Amino acid sequence: MTSQEFFESRRVLLEQALDEAVPEHTGLSDINEAVRYSLLAGGKRVRPLLLMAAAEALGAKGEAFMSVACAIEMIHTYSLVHDDLPAMDDDDYRRGRLTNHKVYGEAKAILAGDALLTRAFEIMLEQKGAEAKTLLRVVRDIACYAGDRGMVGGQTIDLEAEKNIVSIDVLKKMHAAKTGALFKAAVISGGRLAGADDKQLNALETYADNFGMAFQITDDILDVIGDSDQMGKSAGSDAKKQKCTYVSTYGLDGAQKLAKEHVDKANEALLIFGDKARHLEYLVNKL
Amino acid sequence: MTSQEFFESRRVLLEQALDEAVPEHTGLSDINEAVRYSLLAGGKRVRPLLLMAAAEALGAKGEAFMSVACAIEMIHTYSLVHDDLPAMDDDDYRRGRLTNHKVYGEAKAILAGDALLTRAFEIMLEQKGAEAKTLLRVVRDIACYAGDRGMVGGQTIDLEAEKNIVSIDVLKKMHAAKTGALFKAAVISGGRLAGADDKQLNALETYADNFGMAFQITDDILDVIGDSDQMGKSAGSDAKKQKCTYVSTYGLDGAQKLAKEHVDKANEALLIFGDKARHLEYLVNKL
Repeated sequence: MTSQEFFESRRVLLEQALDEAVPEHTGLSDINEAVRYSLLAGGKRVRPLLLMAAAEALGAKGEAFMSVACAIEMIHTYSLVHDDLPAMDDDDYRRGRLTNHKVYGEAKAILAGDALLTRAFEIMLEQKGAEAKTLLRVVRDIACYAGDRGMVGGQTIDLEAEKNIVSIDVLKKMHAAKTGALFKAAVISGGRLAGADDKQLNALETYADNFGMAFQITDDILDVIGDSDQMGKSAGSDAKKQKCTYVSTYGLDGAQKLAKEHVDKANEALLIFGDKARHLEYLVNKL
Repeated sequence: MTSQEFFESRRVLLEQALDEAVPEHTGLSDINEAVRYSLLAGGKRVRPLLLMAAAEALGAKGEAFMSVACAIEMIHTYSLVHDDLPAMDDDDYRRGRLTNHKVYGEAKAILAGDALLTRAFEIMLEQKGAEAKTLLRVVRDIACYAGDRGMVGGQTIDLEAEKNIVSIDVLKKMHAAKTGALFKAAVISGGRLAGADDKQLNALETYADNFGMAFQITDDILDVIGDSDQMGKSAGSDAKKQKCTYVSTYGLDGAQKLAKEHVDKANEALLIFGDKARHLEYLVNKL
């Protein structure tokens, strides 16, 4: 099976699992309508696919840890719902559709995010086929990557960064936490659930770190040279906001070279897994 | 040791554990300043004390499950921070101090709530002295009680209830979810961690349900006859808002009689635990 076929087929299973993860009716309130609006709005599903590809690198079936894969996508989705709020980024559109608060109002969007995050933890604790001790460790790690020393911490730096012009070093720290931490959570969780030892976990961490960097640099490059339709947001928006980016710091050529370096480093870290890591390779090379 | 001495001494340990649960510096952002502002602002700490008293009813030490006790208080605190936001209840004061968003701004208050909820799950998964399988079950239950079929669901009903005049039946459902679910999470977690069997868990659930009802009815009664200072909010505020309450539905005498009935039922459920349940008795009788 090619990597493309692997991801296409696993995405179908994932969409189905996400649909089942949040029931339409709770029997109590209609909050899940707002939850499902954002959770089932498509998107690239990078994080759960990373988790599955990491499990495959360890010789496990990618779809074996679907509950945890769904949960990480739910955490990502809650962060987008809260991030789009008027008090935060104040975005009206996301993936070509109205943002959650534009449809359901601010109060419900806040609660929908809270419900998503809480349900994410419930879902991942329902993961079958994992030893209790391993699962405890995996969930604790995810909480750590998602919280004040990870994603939420990164979003807090981002708040400040929007008010002031900040250095590329601060931006690196911000991206590593805001976006990178959840990539890392996905890759490490997939590895740990599939029985990775310390050496393998280290290699996966190196892969995830470099994947995150390459992802962000590519995002900055696409903002300059990309096509608005393809990105789902306006090209050139970073420059308009005078944002410090990898392109504004290193130039277009420099940024492209830097992205390539991180892709190479990510691929290098995968060598110990041999051919089994080909789906992880595919994901980083596609950037 | 009297119950009063028990709770006074355990509260000291709890405050210390809460202080340690969220480090001042994350090494990344200053979000924990806002987190600590709300988490360490005092309050009655009813939920963690319920958990401790339930553990004692099973013959365990109340303070043995401090991580889970702290986590439940953190979930309660995050819900208050989000509830106070302008888009929700729009409250400027809580416990006599400015609310989180009045001090740190809306964006940070949203993130502080998110950080608290995420950290709560991390902390509870660090609980020592519990079997991995038991702990998984406890944490999953807490997520369920806190989420769309529990607390967040109750808050969603509350949003609607504020816009319309609703029946006492809807209010009962709302309170059971918004406030009752977390009391139940606390009592059941304490019992399960201390090794309760199904019969004992059922008794604890009955206790918690009736505790929650008595708590809410008492709250409504105090709003009518209470002293503003003692409550930390203005007496008579429910009537001013023309809110449907137990007092407006059953009258003051009727509400007092109803509260008494629930206290009696809660006490009755504790009979199977004998004298070891005296701290749980104390908490419900104090209402």
